[in-house]
Amino acid sequence: MKGLDIMLNPKVTAVVGVSTSNPFSPGNVIFRKLCFENGLPTYPINPRGGTVEGQKVYKSLSEAPNDIEMVVISVPARFVPSVLEDCGQKKIKAVIVVSGGFSETGESGSSLQDEIIEIAKKHGITMVGPNCIGVFVPDRLDTFFLPSERVARTRKGSVVLISQSGGWLIERLEEFASRDVGVAAAISIGNAAQTKVYDFIEHFGNDNEVTAIVCYIEGFGEGEGRKFAKISSKVAEKKPVIVLKGGQSEAGHRATQSHTSSLAGSAQVTSAAFKQFGVIEAADEDEVMAYSKVFSFPFRPMKKNRLGCLTVSGGHGVIATDEADYYGLEFPQFTEEDQEAMRKMVTEAYQGIASFRNPCDLTGSASDVDYEGVLRVMLNIDYVDAALLLLLPYAPGISLQIGARVANVAKTKSKPIVAYVPDLDKYEVIIRGFEINGIPCADTIEEAVQMLNGIWKRSQYLHRVGKL
Amino acid sequence: MKGLDIMLNPKVTAVVGVSTSNPFSPGNVIFRKLCFENGLPTYPINPRGGTVEGQKVYKSLSEAPNDIEMVVISVPARFVPSVLEDCGQKKIKAVIVVSGGFSETGESGSSLQDEIIEIAKKHGITMVGPNCIGVFVPDRLDTFFLPSERVARTRKGSVVLISQSGGWLIERLEEFASRDVGVAAAISIGNAAQTKVYDFIEHFGNDNEVTAIVCYIEGFGEGEGRKFAKISSKVAEKKPVIVLKGGQSEAGHRATQSHTSSLAGSAQVTSAAFKQFGVIEAADEDEVMAYSKVFSFPFRPMKKNRLGCLTVSGGHGVIATDEADYYGLEFPQFTEEDQEAMRKMVTEAYQGIASFRNPCDLTGSASDVDYEGVLRVMLNIDYVDAALLLLLPYAPGISLQIGARVANVAKTKSKPIVAYVPDLDKYEVIIRGFEINGIPCADTIEEAVQMLNGIWKRSQYLHRVGKL
Repeated sequence: MKGLDIMLNPKVTAVVGVSTSNPFSPGNVIFRKLCFENGLPTYPINPRGGTVEGQKVYKSLSEAPNDIEMVVISVPARFVPSVLEDCGQKKIKAVIVVSGGFSETGESGSSLQDEIIEIAKKHGITMVGPNCIGVFVPDRLDTFFLPSERVARTRKGSVVLISQSGGWLIERLEEFASRDVGVAAAISIGNAAQTKVYDFIEHFGNDNEVTAIVCYIEGFGEGEGRKFAKISSKVAEKKPVIVLKGGQSEAGHRATQSHTSSLAGSAQVTSAAFKQFGVIEAADEDEVMAYSKVFSFPFRPMKKNRLGCLTVSGGHGVIATDEADYYGLEFPQFTEEDQEAMRKMVTEAYQGIASFRNPCDLTGSASDVDYEGVLRVMLNIDYVDAALLLLLPYAPGISLQIGARVANVAKTKSKPIVAYVPDLDKYEVIIRGFEINGIPCADTIEEAVQMLNGIWKRSQYLHRVGKL
Repeated sequence: MKGLDIMLNPKVTAVVGVSTSNPFSPGNVIFRKLCFENGLPTYPINPRGGTVEGQKVYKSLSEAPNDIEMVVISVPARFVPSVLEDCGQKKIKAVIVVSGGFSETGESGSSLQDEIIEIAKKHGITMVGPNCIGVFVPDRLDTFFLPSERVARTRKGSVVLISQSGGWLIERLEEFASRDVGVAAAISIGNAAQTKVYDFIEHFGNDNEVTAIVCYIEGFGEGEGRKFAKISSKVAEKKPVIVLKGGQSEAGHRATQSHTSSLAGSAQVTSAAFKQFGVIEAADEDEVMAYSKVFSFPFRPMKKNRLGCLTVSGGHGVIATDEADYYGLEFPQFTEEDQEAMRKMVTEAYQGIASFRNPCDLTGSASDVDYEGVLRVMLNIDYVDAALLLLLPYAPGISLQIGARVANVAKTKSKPIVAYVPDLDKYEVIIRGFEINGIPCADTIEEAVQMLNGIWKRSQYLHRVGKL
């Protein structure tokens, strides 16, 4: 879809629906963002003319210069068809309709929506929306009409977010910022009248700088589920496609009706289909975060589902074991021989109080050297496919260097390693020590297990389609 | 148990096992905490004598003054029996054994543990531990031998934490601090050789300043499950007893063996028993946090399980609906009449784009006044038992005063209200606005639903035992 390339990287834009009286109207916020934050030449349009932010306001698109490549429409729903017609006349190929008042409001809105689909089709326009907040590409494009002081945008990165809910998307951007996960793009598709979630999946599937595609979907229109599956299963051979499905419960399904009026399918059927087509289903926002973070790191596949767990607190080991069991991941028992090899790596005074079963509990007396040494042995065990590190930095022997030291051990093997470090400001330097060295840190034990579960799900699909 | 009163509020203490050469040994950390942070007269004991922190070290308990009320023992396991015998000779009634090396290490440790149980019994000593980090009572007593700069202790409050795992307990204290939940006490029971979790439940059940008791349990010794149930069911009539059970999975059960060597029962049987006896079971740390926080606020019971949900983002409403469904809470559909009454409360320009079904979605255009007005109507609906507020402060019309305004509406009714506000530093003032006015804030949608689920579980038990 050529229109998407233009939409995501326009050279000149226009905003239809800036107000000359209210500087905080959505159109004006978008205009300022494109113009001043993104540095894009942007024409403001309003039938009354005048000036906005010192720039001439054109009375219509036809009056405006001819170099416009992308248009954002923010006018009341009833005016959208004629503005879209103007876009067609001007051979503009990319349009974002942020206006609400279409299929989400009932019958008359639905016919208005059909009308704009027809106009877009007639002119070969790639249209996103309506009822959306548009597109955010870090350092390039931002049509999200929410003041930047209220909504933090995260840094540039390799994850793409696509959402039927603008509110959900914004919240992820803020959460990503707080967890230091970057995005390549964030797309609000709203009612997805024309451009669908799978169009974006296909697009970003071909973008080598994107490592994961994460979607929030409330439902599919007729025939769309099949297309989604077909495209996703191909893209999933190259990178993970992750979906959180809203409205999975019957009550939730009803709630989608007044939101984006999607057709939600049966939860079981949908989940089974996701699995078959290699789509990783997230159960909730926590899993979305876990998968987004782990897949923003270089991918290391797992051979089987067997974890080695290294902790400095027995209780944490027990909880990790329960969590792993819930997610169908195994903690194989270490052989006597392997236990002895690990024991030898530990400071002699603590060899008696540490446990070398799996989870391996070095106790709060452990130091960096113990931790590093035992991990080295554990990663070498052939029935261990990945390591789960439970790192409680209140153990006095654990230093700020632990992340770099663990990363050094990690380099000796190609098995995935995930660390749990409590998400407290004071541990930030420890977390960074892991993450700049390529080891993702979870902020709960459950999240660490979810990360490994994501890696395992992805590995299974790649095994199945012969890509591993 | 009189000994517990002394243990939790001693006038004079002693620490057996301070080192004159290593100021960072556990005994020395505990000594400094009791002496300098808690301001308690405390005698250091070491067979070699000498001085520590400028104080005279007594060579044995028998040499030390006679006003000691509570003793912390931090010596190698094999010396514990004789020190405990000294305590008995001195008529000391409260002892914390932090030393490890007992039943958690195997057979010889087990017989050593039997030995100290016998000695404690013979002398009528109330003993906590061994293999624990002891007791923390804000502003009074702190035997947790972890440097304060590594482990934040939370403020004084009304929740009691009791844990078989010291690591788990410490992490909760830090998490409580970051979520501003206070504790009345935090108790590490370790191997619970003599004093059991139910002894503390009974004790704090009678403390009127305690509003909730939260326990992490890996398992019960023989006959202990029954006693736990009996005591908890009585205490639960007065305040919630919440339990996270570690080792519920078969694999997790195995892991408990090398930790506290507890006997874990079958998960289903345990869960069913908890429910029958009015114990609220937490599925994981997230639920522990949700229940701890909601029950640190004044309790408002629910008549039935019907929620009214008020949001400014449709996607959040859909997700809340799915979550509520998962927890067995209902979103009744609002009557046409009630929807009209709510619609009338909203700024005219937005009446057309807002939805007044349940969840009621005021959209990002909503202002404080709209939110407050609609909530007032919603709380008045007789088939709404509690309100779930989804508050995304990036809606430009939502101000910092929203918490106080909502609280004013809350005062008109006795129904519980729980708010979801994203947990970001910049929203801290909004969260405080809710919480100082008595409305708990969750930091995920799921946590908000879990809080209401906790209230509903508690309400059901109180209905059942005729206390509502």
